[in-house]
Amino acid sequence: MIRGSTELVAIVGSPIAQVKSPENFNTWFAQHGKDLAMIAIDLEQQALDDFLATLRGWRNLRGCVVTVPYKQVLAERLDGVSARAAALRSVNVIRREADGRLLGDNVDGDGFLNAARQHGFQGHGQRALVVGAGGVGSAIAWALAEAGVAELTLADVSGERAEGLAALLRDAFPRLAVHTDFPSLAGFDLVVNASPVGMGGSGELPLPLAQLQTLRAGALVADVVTAPEITPLLEVAQRMGCTVQTGAEMAFAQLGNLGAFMGVTPQQI
Amino acid sequence: MIRGSTELVAIVGSPIAQVKSPENFNTWFAQHGKDLAMIAIDLEQQALDDFLATLRGWRNLRGCVVTVPYKQVLAERLDGVSARAAALRSVNVIRREADGRLLGDNVDGDGFLNAARQHGFQGHGQRALVVGAGGVGSAIAWALAEAGVAELTLADVSGERAEGLAALLRDAFPRLAVHTDFPSLAGFDLVVNASPVGMGGSGELPLPLAQLQTLRAGALVADVVTAPEITPLLEVAQRMGCTVQTGAEMAFAQLGNLGAFMGVTPQQI
Repeated sequence: MIRGSTELVAIVGSPIAQVKSPENFNTWFAQHGKDLAMIAIDLEQQALDDFLATLRGWRNLRGCVVTVPYKQVLAERLDGVSARAAALRSVNVIRREADGRLLGDNVDGDGFLNAARQHGFQGHGQRALVVGAGGVGSAIAWALAEAGVAELTLADVSGERAEGLAALLRDAFPRLAVHTDFPSLAGFDLVVNASPVGMGGSGELPLPLAQLQTLRAGALVADVVTAPEITPLLEVAQRMGCTVQTGAEMAFAQLGNLGAFMGVTPQQI
Repeated sequence: MIRGSTELVAIVGSPIAQVKSPENFNTWFAQHGKDLAMIAIDLEQQALDDFLATLRGWRNLRGCVVTVPYKQVLAERLDGVSARAAALRSVNVIRREADGRLLGDNVDGDGFLNAARQHGFQGHGQRALVVGAGGVGSAIAWALAEAGVAELTLADVSGERAEGLAALLRDAFPRLAVHTDFPSLAGFDLVVNASPVGMGGSGELPLPLAQLQTLRAGALVADVVTAPEITPLLEVAQRMGCTVQTGAEMAFAQLGNLGAFMGVTPQQI
């Protein structure tokens, strides 16, 4: 139970009721006897600057997870960000230093890789396709590049956005082969949907069914969408004999990275 | 446990670890199956304006209890305050309206009276002495005046401060007899220490022992100090055969008033 002595972490976004981080963190804090709690803050965009100024003066708050739609806008306004958050122009976690300075990082990609490794995906030398070149897709692509994939292919409903991310990655990882087209899915060890397609029971697939039927059995197919847990993409992948990874697995695998950055959990929880 | 859907109330002050409101409210919320939680915010003074602007845009926050040292400074900065909070220039609770406006009230006096009534003190026609004419003492004196005491006597280490409060009360309650001196304590039905004297094990008394020995057995002697629970004043009062009321009793009796103003509890809890 929260007391006057309880130190806090937060997750900020809007809407916020759907996020699972508070119950995941609060369960861990309770199991480990920590006088810590995570709260969820549904904040209007016009209050973001005031919110950051409040964080700087909020002595018993350790940090704040950032979710949709504030990952990009907050990346511009902190006192310091990691190299990857700067390159991605996106933060998903803020730490409050003892002097009130706010530092940001983006561990979406770490969370994705943690989960994928639990399914046997190693990264190094493998071939991956990321569908969706927005905030989460960019973070996942960056982490795959850091992990040493041999080839990275990017797709997006906006070709311009896919090309933009490709250019960013080629610049940061000159030795990596980055593509924006692909004849079939047969060559990929990993296919990840990082777009919102399939969310909320729409029934939609992020790639045409005929293309999905070229998936290699044994490939890892992942989705960042958390509701439904088994998206239409993952249903098709299961029928094709692929290994599947849910959005909830990625979110859960990221908890230790988020908590460690805020200084409230070990890296692996 | 706090989830993404949990609505929040806060208590803001500095320091904050000692406050009991979070565990009192959180116990009540849990017992009544409410998806609500109270958090304690230790805020630097320089962040107060940013904090208010954040509250205006914080959609899942219902209100905020205000404690030392921000009761006075916040009273000047809200979008509206009750008549008593305006007169006292002090708020101890803020409600966030659906449109983001922040309204303030001061229910310190209500909490005191609720507790005193549980000890049989009726107020109307009785004689009361309030020692300490600061924020809490002013709120208690105001509530006693509203409750219709026949005579109200004020004492403070600063005679000027006692006179200032007396002038305020004479102006607001023209028919009330307000004094700032007293020959002995024999005539009082209620004596309340609303000063910090006796806090933290100092062993000090807010009035000379010889004066306290003029207390009438059966009078109600109250203290706003919460630690220790039985202050030196209350120890002497017990020996004199007085009824005693602790600071914790006042704080607990105020929960319903605070919660009702924020819209999260009934008036009596």
